Amino acid sequence: MSKNIGIIGAGSWGIALAYLLTNNGHKVTIWSRSDSSVEKLKSYHGNEDKLPGVKLPDDVIYTSKIQEAVEDKNIIVLVIPSAHMRETARLIAPYINPTEECQQIIVNCSKGIEEDTMMLMSDVILDEIPGSNVCVLSGPSHAEEVGRKMPTTIVIGAFDKDIARYVQNVFMNNVFRVYTSPDMLGIEIGAALKNVIALAAGIADGLGCGDNAKAALITRGIAEMSRLGMAMGGKLETFSGLSGIGDLIVTCASMHSRNRRAGILIGQGKSYQEAMDEVKMVVEGVYSAKAALKLSEKYEVEMPIVSEVNEILFKGKKPEDALRNLMERDKRTENSSLDW
Amino acid sequence: MSKNIGIIGAGSWGIALAYLLTNNGHKVTIWSRSDSSVEKLKSYHGNEDKLPGVKLPDDVIYTSKIQEAVEDKNIIVLVIPSAHMRETARLIAPYINPTEECQQIIVNCSKGIEEDTMMLMSDVILDEIPGSNVCVLSGPSHAEEVGRKMPTTIVIGAFDKDIARYVQNVFMNNVFRVYTSPDMLGIEIGAALKNVIALAAGIADGLGCGDNAKAALITRGIAEMSRLGMAMGGKLETFSGLSGIGDLIVTCASMHSRNRRAGILIGQGKSYQEAMDEVKMVVEGVYSAKAALKLSEKYEVEMPIVSEVNEILFKGKKPEDALRNLMERDKRTENSSLDW
Repeated sequence: MSKNIGIIGAGSWGIALAYLLTNNGHKVTIWSRSDSSVEKLKSYHGNEDKLPGVKLPDDVIYTSKIQEAVEDKNIIVLVIPSAHMRETARLIAPYINPTEECQQIIVNCSKGIEEDTMMLMSDVILDEIPGSNVCVLSGPSHAEEVGRKMPTTIVIGAFDKDIARYVQNVFMNNVFRVYTSPDMLGIEIGAALKNVIALAAGIADGLGCGDNAKAALITRGIAEMSRLGMAMGGKLETFSGLSGIGDLIVTCASMHSRNRRAGILIGQGKSYQEAMDEVKMVVEGVYSAKAALKLSEKYEVEMPIVSEVNEILFKGKKPEDALRNLMERDKRTENSSLDW
Repeated sequence: MSKNIGIIGAGSWGIALAYLLTNNGHKVTIWSRSDSSVEKLKSYHGNEDKLPGVKLPDDVIYTSKIQEAVEDKNIIVLVIPSAHMRETARLIAPYINPTEECQQIIVNCSKGIEEDTMMLMSDVILDEIPGSNVCVLSGPSHAEEVGRKMPTTIVIGAFDKDIARYVQNVFMNNVFRVYTSPDMLGIEIGAALKNVIALAAGIADGLGCGDNAKAALITRGIAEMSRLGMAMGGKLETFSGLSGIGDLIVTCASMHSRNRRAGILIGQGKSYQEAMDEVKMVVEGVYSAKAALKLSEKYEVEMPIVSEVNEILFKGKKPEDALRNLMERDKRTENSSLDW
């Protein structure tokens, strides 16, 4: 049955999801912050700068009035930079009043950790909108490919099974396969931390390392993330899944990834500030690296890759010295939970 | 301390390991089947066809006499096509007499499942040489990169912790990091089955799918392998590790991979026989696909990707129909072991 959906944020992923959802027969309203950006969206029927070529149907509504995009909507999709999550949640809060007919499910697509509080995005949302029906959507999904109906899989994590299935039914079609999961925490931790590993993989590329080293960084990186994530209450299966290793594979393989591109520049000897200036965008991995280090200390989890990335970014360590440290650590078993 | 090491097989990986081990100060004897190939190895100080540019030191011994490469050696490294494992194990058996001073550890580097018996390589070795000290070496390791001292990580699996550590000490150096593991079974299952997934990833490439679909196939492929491997007694951590996902990432990212290249051709509409003819080499994934299907039936594990690959290879199903089947399966949870 057709649902009313508000999409908060009109970047490449917001537009790609609008394209998917209108194709699935739902009614979509897209919110963007300024009137001028709304005008541009309206005239192109999409976002010409961020997702060129993807045109939305005529009945999509574009608005800068948050009320119009949230009130009475069955689903509200949040697709905004994680740094804006708290203020945006505060903006939408007055218009969230779940009833039995309209649950106003909030689907969070933003990945990150709030810098001061170390909170995950769903916790920030619940902090601002207590009692709301929050879930999280994550997985290996370049917007460019979803906007061209190329086969994609993704995971919806929710506290409540019925909510997960509701969202699964709304988003899934024959080129967009949605799996459900109860492990929201694991999904969000993976999503927030993967960019640190993507940055490390980029640094290895920049140093001239090969596929062996990159596969090692991805694999051992996921091992670190899993250790931390499990200490925080997530499940190993999630880190081995689409929102963990799957998303990381896409990120590390793609030159679209800002984190990877910034990493390459850092591996070639630039500072992180120079790299961010050259990539001309915020590089989430730089902030996530800091957060991951704090979390590893809090939960007393050993994270050698995260720790070396922090040394490179913030303490001027040479990437080649960091790599040497990683290779020359004490002899280990691959996984300390397995023993003879 | 310097060890005497026999390397059985002089392909690219055999030569790369000889290069590594001589750099680590060990004495290496390389066996190859024919006198003519031994002459070529001697004159080039390596294998000009399969690993050009890698030159071994003068004191490496090349021989076609198996006794010379096995008798009294501390370590015997088996690097031969898996189809030749049983006959080779039978050849070396008379010269394996472990003592307290010389344990004659057999390091298996061959990946595969024996077609008739469905046995893993270490089981074939133990079948032919009962009581021998068998272990297995596996991980993301292109020979070309190891032959250029590029950073690489790998896992040594052994039934006995001391043997694992012994081999770790012999192989490890500052660009080749060796982890130990007790889960030989998990390592060997991953190594044998990963090529089926690489084939599937290649088929997706050939169909014109993007990074989203490839990441999905790799991730869901590992999930299938893990389910089967755990039913057979392996550990989830191993499939998430270097010899599982790590090796698969390297294989699926590389155009060096015969399995991936064959997959691309099949995705473009060729039969597997045409693809093998064009790739001009044995494509292990084709045989592993058959073995994996048999194992999934024996252990009653659902393996949709393996099953579709078999349909394509042996029953003439069109790749695009197989892909559609995978995308349109019933709605699922990502991992049935996690529930609300």
